Amino acid sequence: MIQRVTIIGAGNLATHLAKAFSKAGIQIVQVYSRTLGSAGALGTTLGVPFTNIISEIDLNTDLVILSVKDDAMGQVLDQTDLSQRLVVHTAGSVSMDFLSQYSERCGVFYPLQTFSKEREIDFSGIPVCIEAKSAEILAELNALAAKISKTIYEINSDDRKILHLAAVFACNFVNYFYDISGQLLEKQGLSFDLLKPLIRETAAKVMVMTPSDAQTGPAKRYDETIVNKHLKLMEDRPQLSEIYSLITNSIYQAHKKN
Amino acid sequence: MIQRVTIIGAGNLATHLAKAFSKAGIQIVQVYSRTLGSAGALGTTLGVPFTNIISEIDLNTDLVILSVKDDAMGQVLDQTDLSQRLVVHTAGSVSMDFLSQYSERCGVFYPLQTFSKEREIDFSGIPVCIEAKSAEILAELNALAAKISKTIYEINSDDRKILHLAAVFACNFVNYFYDISGQLLEKQGLSFDLLKPLIRETAAKVMVMTPSDAQTGPAKRYDETIVNKHLKLMEDRPQLSEIYSLITNSIYQAHKKN
Repeated sequence: MIQRVTIIGAGNLATHLAKAFSKAGIQIVQVYSRTLGSAGALGTTLGVPFTNIISEIDLNTDLVILSVKDDAMGQVLDQTDLSQRLVVHTAGSVSMDFLSQYSERCGVFYPLQTFSKEREIDFSGIPVCIEAKSAEILAELNALAAKISKTIYEINSDDRKILHLAAVFACNFVNYFYDISGQLLEKQGLSFDLLKPLIRETAAKVMVMTPSDAQTGPAKRYDETIVNKHLKLMEDRPQLSEIYSLITNSIYQAHKKN
Repeated sequence: MIQRVTIIGAGNLATHLAKAFSKAGIQIVQVYSRTLGSAGALGTTLGVPFTNIISEIDLNTDLVILSVKDDAMGQVLDQTDLSQRLVVHTAGSVSMDFLSQYSERCGVFYPLQTFSKEREIDFSGIPVCIEAKSAEILAELNALAAKISKTIYEINSDDRKILHLAAVFACNFVNYFYDISGQLLEKQGLSFDLLKPLIRETAAKVMVMTPSDAQTGPAKRYDETIVNKHLKLMEDRPQLSEIYSLITNSIYQAHKKN
């Protein structure tokens, strides 16, 4: 049973994951981050040792969790002997096989959520997607995930890559459109509060109906008069106009076919 | 006081608005729609008269609500003598002045929400944006709006146009990204349920923090390795790749500046 965990990384995901484990009674052995400030911030919050020196990473642990930027993962792995260790990464777009080169006892522990350090989150509702090199490791990761979440999926590397791409659209890109709408209102002296019920309802609708059925607006019915008025409002912002035209045309094409 | 209302239109908004009024004790005098089937569906639901003949529109009413596609508005107005009537439209992108040509007693009654016929909605949480040609009419519309909603804003035509554009990004375009993500999952045999907690949290975050602060993901930090992997997954879908690249670059540019 996994009871002691070493956390490599101190970003948004690493921070929330470490806090959730700690709360669930899992011992955080140590936090490593390339940046001492980040390692210290998380280590201090948890009241556990921290370091920014790779050679000082504490491997006397049940599980090493690699939660660093994809590009940084290799750097840590190359300088650490993990061959006897159980190791997982938390990355959507990195296959499990990448870890196999360093340790046969490996897997993936991918919580599918958007994490910001300033925002507390209830981990129990977050889907944790796990994958493992053996049935035994899978069972261990499953037991660990069950301590912090009610929803666990076994997802292989190919599926996880698509899931990550889908999440970029459903979260990162969606949030950017919230950002654009907020900027449009701000420039006009209007409050973002005006849009909050709309944003809530737009998300709530797809909990119970398909996004295709939930689609509304001028793009779907290709209301050219409105589309042209909107483009006129963005005359001085070519990049915004380009986004608007591309998405409007895509929505129209998608619904014309139906 | 407005107690009797004639509804021109039987689309998503007209339907939900008429139902909300009816529930609040406002009498729906009649429903008109160009399509007899639509007029009949709404009229029957409400238990009120309906027609698809413009000359038969019942003008013995306190308020005529024009809730048709922008392009169709002129057609109805040209064939109806509204000069003595209080008339409002419900369109985000049409200025109030457009109605002034037909009646000096005019205004705008714009509920800011996404409406689908199949989905029931609590009108009380929907912001109703009103505008009127006189203080007296404004007071009347305010009293009417207060019967169905707790949130009423006075918004002029210029502001409403921007608000509508912002709503297209925050709702229609956002929903389209939900749709894309769902399609990606479906093609891979994965359930859309996987993304629901993420969609909920993405919307919930911007209730309490700015979208810019809430932004996460590979585009923000320009994680080129992930971006290239994602583009490779969409090789066979040029339009999707184009959307991905455009939004990713925009997010990166926006956050690089910060």
